[in-house]
Amino acid sequence: MNATESRRQFLRQAGLGVAAAALTGPAAAASLSPSVMQDENQKKLGFAIVGLGKYATEQMMPAFKDCKHARITALVSGSPDKARKLAAEYGVDAKNIYSYQNFDSIKDNPAVDVVYIVLPPGLHAEYTIRAAQAGKHVLCEKPMANTPEECQRMIEACKKAGKKLMIAYRAQFEPFNLDAIERIRKGELGKLRMVTADHGRQVQPDKDQADTWRVQKKLAGGGSLMDIGIYSLNAARYLTGEEPVEVTAQEYSDKSDPRFKEVEDVIHFTLRFPSGVLASCTSAYSIEGVKRYRAYGDKAWLDLDPATDYYKHQMKIGDKDGERQPQIKEGNQFAAELDHMAECVMQNKTPKTPGEEGLRDIKLIMAIYEAARKGKPVRV
Amino acid sequence: MNATESRRQFLRQAGLGVAAAALTGPAAAASLSPSVMQDENQKKLGFAIVGLGKYATEQMMPAFKDCKHARITALVSGSPDKARKLAAEYGVDAKNIYSYQNFDSIKDNPAVDVVYIVLPPGLHAEYTIRAAQAGKHVLCEKPMANTPEECQRMIEACKKAGKKLMIAYRAQFEPFNLDAIERIRKGELGKLRMVTADHGRQVQPDKDQADTWRVQKKLAGGGSLMDIGIYSLNAARYLTGEEPVEVTAQEYSDKSDPRFKEVEDVIHFTLRFPSGVLASCTSAYSIEGVKRYRAYGDKAWLDLDPATDYYKHQMKIGDKDGERQPQIKEGNQFAAELDHMAECVMQNKTPKTPGEEGLRDIKLIMAIYEAARKGKPVRV
Repeated sequence: MNATESRRQFLRQAGLGVAAAALTGPAAAASLSPSVMQDENQKKLGFAIVGLGKYATEQMMPAFKDCKHARITALVSGSPDKARKLAAEYGVDAKNIYSYQNFDSIKDNPAVDVVYIVLPPGLHAEYTIRAAQAGKHVLCEKPMANTPEECQRMIEACKKAGKKLMIAYRAQFEPFNLDAIERIRKGELGKLRMVTADHGRQVQPDKDQADTWRVQKKLAGGGSLMDIGIYSLNAARYLTGEEPVEVTAQEYSDKSDPRFKEVEDVIHFTLRFPSGVLASCTSAYSIEGVKRYRAYGDKAWLDLDPATDYYKHQMKIGDKDGERQPQIKEGNQFAAELDHMAECVMQNKTPKTPGEEGLRDIKLIMAIYEAARKGKPVRV
Repeated sequence: MNATESRRQFLRQAGLGVAAAALTGPAAAASLSPSVMQDENQKKLGFAIVGLGKYATEQMMPAFKDCKHARITALVSGSPDKARKLAAEYGVDAKNIYSYQNFDSIKDNPAVDVVYIVLPPGLHAEYTIRAAQAGKHVLCEKPMANTPEECQRMIEACKKAGKKLMIAYRAQFEPFNLDAIERIRKGELGKLRMVTADHGRQVQPDKDQADTWRVQKKLAGGGSLMDIGIYSLNAARYLTGEEPVEVTAQEYSDKSDPRFKEVEDVIHFTLRFPSGVLASCTSAYSIEGVKRYRAYGDKAWLDLDPATDYYKHQMKIGDKDGERQPQIKEGNQFAAELDHMAECVMQNKTPKTPGEEGLRDIKLIMAIYEAARKGKPVRV
């Protein structure tokens, strides 16, 4: 029995999956003694963060403080200085810092249960497969990979290793989105008729180092669609609860703009679902930030704007009596996502957003690109 | 010289096009003696309202009180009781009430300068042509007609009669929309990249008599696209200031719903403009009210929601510094539209929204239907 399994068994026997949770969080931690803190940590699974870019360091890593079942125990980076600084900040043992070269030796480190891949999409397949082969469970950022073939290899590698694979669709762990889905499933909007979803941002490789890989096809897989249009796509799927049967698309990229030499800028796509519901989605890399969607039923519509931001979401519902803004409690979507991964490992459950979920989006993205390229609808 | 021409000449000689305007309106009227009121009225062109439905009686006719150059002098209706009641309310001489049968005798009525056609679209061609043949100028509701051929015949009939033809695109006379267009033209959003526009409502022929013709193809020409999707389409054109070169579309109508036996419910369409700008538009007859659009430039986006309502419009602009809500003065779009028609007649100008503008939309609507039917993009 390895360290993870013994921890898992301990939690199961003690029925602490929930009890432990109730004790943690910053408020609870403040009143606990150091030894209790240590006990709490031992109940958490260890995560190795692969790739210490802006998203990892500014959004996701700080969220671990709110996790009940997950903590950072290792860092993998090409920048030893950055890694050492962050290790000190997050209380990670310096011996648990890896480079991309010695990453595979992580297999010998019992402090690491889960490898969280926060690299550009073009590197997801390689590092997921190496992590699985090192005997680690894998949480991997969206988009899952550059191609369906890569996704398939990732799924197979994790299956062969008997390890979990989850794709980090944070919006599916975010309270406003979960509330929206629940209202739709309960019929609050009536019969769903259509969805609109818009995601856009300014990609600025010359101003923001975090954007340099985003305009390189090899690393990013594609342009705005792969990076942010995927939120429109994924939302259309989780709001309807259906899988599209047909896609159409139109693309526009100003090729004189150096940002769009390799990847697309604006892409508009429509999804047709089996029930007849249509979703009109947009994605762009040359506009100011938009992250919104609206689901329209035959009784009411539900609007999230922003819908897929890091925080400060807003819901609006419109029906024959007018508009209202339901008050929903904000929650840490990053912590919820990390804890879900940990729980799936501890309880041997299939993640809510497994590799197959990531693969579905990548297949649809390929169909959208094909529809745009050929100028005709593509059946999927 | 007929009555109209003499009035026109009087106004021109007196330079009263603006001065007269400043004196009118309910506030001014209250302080004027009956004889002055009569003088003011004589400076206004006489409008015959053809079709006394909900829109005419609840929105447009009340707006005449704010007009500087237009007043109601005749009514044309199939309901003599309704016409008599409204004639009394609006101070229209009972001898100026017409039926659809004796409508053509309006040619002998010098009190009527302009015929405003507020009938279902399927009747627009017939009544526009009859009005032109009666020697009257024509203001006609949108959509202009059921087919491009009908539009062409309307244009030709008015041309042959030497009369003006204007299509009542009220949004093009509405201050928030005009402000939005001006900001875009001045470059406030930077280079325009994309537009989204959504229009929807519940069509309820069983509850609202005003909706009965809307689900009959012969009268309505089509479904939601003809009636309200046209606002998304027209907005995409006036926001970009361009004419689309290609359209794609997808439609969904539940044929088990008696409302959609003859006309379409949901239709999503994308327009590609010569500059590369894409517009994603939606239209639906089975959802709660939505009348909004957003134009995205490479520096900022501009949102109107509602964009094409009767009143209470709201503008929001988002850029790198956040979001703001410019305060714009509400204005009576109906009165502005009616006055524009009157001014075009008085000053022999081409209306801002002539028959050719209506024809352009109808041609595009036909292309959108074709794209939806054939499942492929249509060049226009």
